[in-house]
Amino acid sequence: MARGKSQNQRSRSYESDEHERGACEWCEYALVITLATILLIGVSALTVFWVFYYREGYAWADDLPDKQFNLHPTLMVAGFITFSGFSVLLYRICRCFRRIYVKLLHAIFHALAFPCIVIGFLAVLDYHNKKGINNFYSLHSWIGFVAMGLFGIQYAVGFFSFLLLLICNKGTAGFRASLVPVHAAFGILTFVLGVAACLTGLTEKAIFSLGAERYSGMVDEGIIINAIGVACIAILAVVMYILSRDKFRTPESRGQHIRASVDL
Amino acid sequence: MARGKSQNQRSRSYESDEHERGACEWCEYALVITLATILLIGVSALTVFWVFYYREGYAWADDLPDKQFNLHPTLMVAGFITFSGFSVLLYRICRCFRRIYVKLLHAIFHALAFPCIVIGFLAVLDYHNKKGINNFYSLHSWIGFVAMGLFGIQYAVGFFSFLLLLICNKGTAGFRASLVPVHAAFGILTFVLGVAACLTGLTEKAIFSLGAERYSGMVDEGIIINAIGVACIAILAVVMYILSRDKFRTPESRGQHIRASVDL
Repeated sequence: MARGKSQNQRSRSYESDEHERGACEWCEYALVITLATILLIGVSALTVFWVFYYREGYAWADDLPDKQFNLHPTLMVAGFITFSGFSVLLYRICRCFRRIYVKLLHAIFHALAFPCIVIGFLAVLDYHNKKGINNFYSLHSWIGFVAMGLFGIQYAVGFFSFLLLLICNKGTAGFRASLVPVHAAFGILTFVLGVAACLTGLTEKAIFSLGAERYSGMVDEGIIINAIGVACIAILAVVMYILSRDKFRTPESRGQHIRASVDL
Repeated sequence: MARGKSQNQRSRSYESDEHERGACEWCEYALVITLATILLIGVSALTVFWVFYYREGYAWADDLPDKQFNLHPTLMVAGFITFSGFSVLLYRICRCFRRIYVKLLHAIFHALAFPCIVIGFLAVLDYHNKKGINNFYSLHSWIGFVAMGLFGIQYAVGFFSFLLLLICNKGTAGFRASLVPVHAAFGILTFVLGVAACLTGLTEKAIFSLGAERYSGMVDEGIIINAIGVACIAILAVVMYILSRDKFRTPESRGQHIRASVDL
């Protein structure tokens, strides 16, 4: 009898712990999503502000190459950071919809990133050609080139394997499941390379546009450029945190992960 | 009887799979360790080669500030990439020794990184003061400052919690276990920030030392500097790959990981 009572108490205490952990988890979940959203929108907003306030806005014309160049940082930050970041986060944390809708959201946000990256790349290529500057000489351009290549391959493979192959759902289930960790690993690598390309690009731009003396004089524009870089780093930290927390997985994929861990 | 035979066959087939996966796993393990070792030693060797061949070597003297600056990239690459990289990898993949020896190796490699980072920082601080250049104006310096701060805090917390608290092993086991994921997450963030600081620093150095025209003219030195950056990126990719593979964990910590996943 005494033992039964004790067991009952322990069970209630566990339920209470479970409930508290659930509330804590939701609180952390809401906080991280809010922070990620503010940073992802904020970094693009800050880049647009920087271009309009300090770099005279945008254009695509032979006599305004500098304004055409401004499309490059803006679109690359939007493509590699904002849209790609939202795409990665939505895939990992979206708990409300069916799996197929989450996949579609993932594909749609990457589809928004795609033209940004292509036009951003063409803008700087055309700017270099107009100004007679070599292409692909800098560390920034090498990192960016690999990031763009990986982005293209990942998009093609993802679209074909995880959406088109659903036509033959059962027959391709094994193949698709085996591709998930590879797609995820290269996806994270692409995101990290995108951030690295942004950081080196911002450093280049600050020195080329402001010159060593004004940049080291801590002019306002230099601080704004640094702040864009810091936001990119903060986004990378938040994304890595979310990816490292099993709690943020959808219950479905968390189950798969547990089975995979135990199977090892 | 038939059923018994079939079960026997299935069991042998599983054993064979297990054996093959074991061989495959060891093959991947050896390949990744070799690649990581070559890259971690190679990136520091390439930096030393660059300094001796193109930047006239090292010094610490008032009349040779440029040679003194050369200590900065060399020691920072050694501290943040080579020694820190080996420390992270050894902790994750060292299967042969007792846990306490692996921890000591982890602490020793970080202890080797510590003076590199301190002297590397003092070298550039003194260089800036001698040349009358402001400190902490660039994105590179901001990232580097946060990376150094995190490195110091991590080292102090790690040394105190995971080595000193072993004096009272049983009493602190819960506290130490709860600190492991926090220490690991901030450790990875510190490593990523170290790589980001190296990439932005190399970009700065290439433009300041070569000038925009020579750098865009693809001179040999520019390509060597880019190659150091590419090696840093490759190391980050290999380290992230190893950290993402549960297979590379020591059997002991893999067990803890499985229990933690199932507990969620």
